[in-house]
Amino acid sequence: MSVAVSSSSHPSAANGAGPFLERLGGRVEQVRSHLCVGIDPDPAGLPDGFSTDVAGVEAFSRLLIEAAAPFAAAFKVNVAFFEAFGSEGVAALERVRAAIPAAIPFIADAKRGDIGSTTARQAVALFDSLGADAITASPYLGREAIAPLLERADRFVFVLCRTSNQGAGEFQDLSLDGDPLYVHVARHVSAWAAAGDQAGLVVGATAPAELEMIRAAAPGLPFLVPGLGAQGGDIEAVLRHGPASALPAAGVAGAGLVVSVSRGIAGAGLNAADPGAEIARAAERWAHELRC
Amino acid sequence: MSVAVSSSSHPSAANGAGPFLERLGGRVEQVRSHLCVGIDPDPAGLPDGFSTDVAGVEAFSRLLIEAAAPFAAAFKVNVAFFEAFGSEGVAALERVRAAIPAAIPFIADAKRGDIGSTTARQAVALFDSLGADAITASPYLGREAIAPLLERADRFVFVLCRTSNQGAGEFQDLSLDGDPLYVHVARHVSAWAAAGDQAGLVVGATAPAELEMIRAAAPGLPFLVPGLGAQGGDIEAVLRHGPASALPAAGVAGAGLVVSVSRGIAGAGLNAADPGAEIARAAERWAHELRC
Repeated sequence: MSVAVSSSSHPSAANGAGPFLERLGGRVEQVRSHLCVGIDPDPAGLPDGFSTDVAGVEAFSRLLIEAAAPFAAAFKVNVAFFEAFGSEGVAALERVRAAIPAAIPFIADAKRGDIGSTTARQAVALFDSLGADAITASPYLGREAIAPLLERADRFVFVLCRTSNQGAGEFQDLSLDGDPLYVHVARHVSAWAAAGDQAGLVVGATAPAELEMIRAAAPGLPFLVPGLGAQGGDIEAVLRHGPASALPAAGVAGAGLVVSVSRGIAGAGLNAADPGAEIARAAERWAHELRC
Repeated sequence: MSVAVSSSSHPSAANGAGPFLERLGGRVEQVRSHLCVGIDPDPAGLPDGFSTDVAGVEAFSRLLIEAAAPFAAAFKVNVAFFEAFGSEGVAALERVRAAIPAAIPFIADAKRGDIGSTTARQAVALFDSLGADAITASPYLGREAIAPLLERADRFVFVLCRTSNQGAGEFQDLSLDGDPLYVHVARHVSAWAAAGDQAGLVVGATAPAELEMIRAAAPGLPFLVPGLGAQGGDIEAVLRHGPASALPAAGVAGAGLVVSVSRGIAGAGLNAADPGAEIARAAERWAHELRC
């Protein structure tokens, strides 16, 4: 099964050449929304009619893509939901990725990062083999470790800054010279980007005050904002402080803001006579909420 | 290809029941060494006679396991070296994992960690589907996020504390509320373990002074120590401060210290008439250097 769509079938992947930020801006302009549709298919949470195995996860992901694509500025997949099925799950992910229209940027939410020689192989796995336009990465090992991800001119890395989970503050809120760790991360990543790295930040919608502080510390960086919908984030704060106020991100449509909604869209298919129609309606509604 | 060894073929995996720390201690007692053999097969660095594709990577990994197993207290694989080949690479990893003798603990170096609902799927991917006895994870999102990894009674998580890469200090050395970030991580993970979590730390051999401070902050935790060999770590400091000085880890053979050597063993096969024999000799030498 995994041989049918091997890694070599989309070696340079994605949406053609040019910087990710411009490709993203081009798509935001088309849909006039910051909406990023999340693909996190938990086999325990699929609509009736979908099997709870890898085949059901793949079939539902394809339905989600088909229904939500007209409204999506980007798609974001949490790779763990496919990796849970081992190599067969990764083969399914490869086929799901191939089903995403070429005009829509594809973000692999993988939260990677390792010492440099290993990170170089993570870059091959996510950018070349899977064909991700952008990925997420952890800052914990520092820039030197994730350089192989940051230095790809046609791809992009959203570095974890202030995450959306309830316990995010355990380390991220620790304070140095009066500023929390996440503000230091925001400043460092700003400096990396100013020196040429293809980098932005992950900032959860569940922490509106932090979001405002991070935007002040990093006025020019693109933000990937998860946590709306099921996690209960603050949409008004996201639309106020999420868009960049300085170059480079302020120079493109949407000002570099992508807002990820997962369960809020995919969950609309539950208990529905026509899950695809309900998902499309939910995606259209979220795209409108997040219009720009 | 990936169907032959599907995720269901080793669902509960590994070395039987019971806590990881005891299983590790049992194996350390057998080989009387802290040596953990690293499997990081870069296709560009294989001995003559191995192809530079996924088949070559799998064949070399099998040779490494066969040659080094008699001297290994554990094996550690960097999953990115297989993920770089997409689903076919993960299928190869599943076969490589199945080739590791049941008596030898298997550590998946994956540096995972996400919000809880995603981390739960990472636990399935690594513990259930791949059959890892232990994994590595990032602390950045806090305990609440990685709880699904920490709460598995028969598995184990080495949390990144002070990593071995050159730029590790960029964030880890920041002095937050008076102590470097890595000391906060060490103290927090100690508290997690005291409350029942199956957790230890990753501490690089390249930072001997930090290793000593971390051992003082976390006297009872198992340490996974990479960075000897190619990265030039300090073996004397590792053997002095690496073993635990308090329970729980001090209660088992080797006191919870596992020291990972990758290129220092696998690289012995380069330019060798009989790569397996040279790898075995290098593993025996490192096992002796790391004897206990």
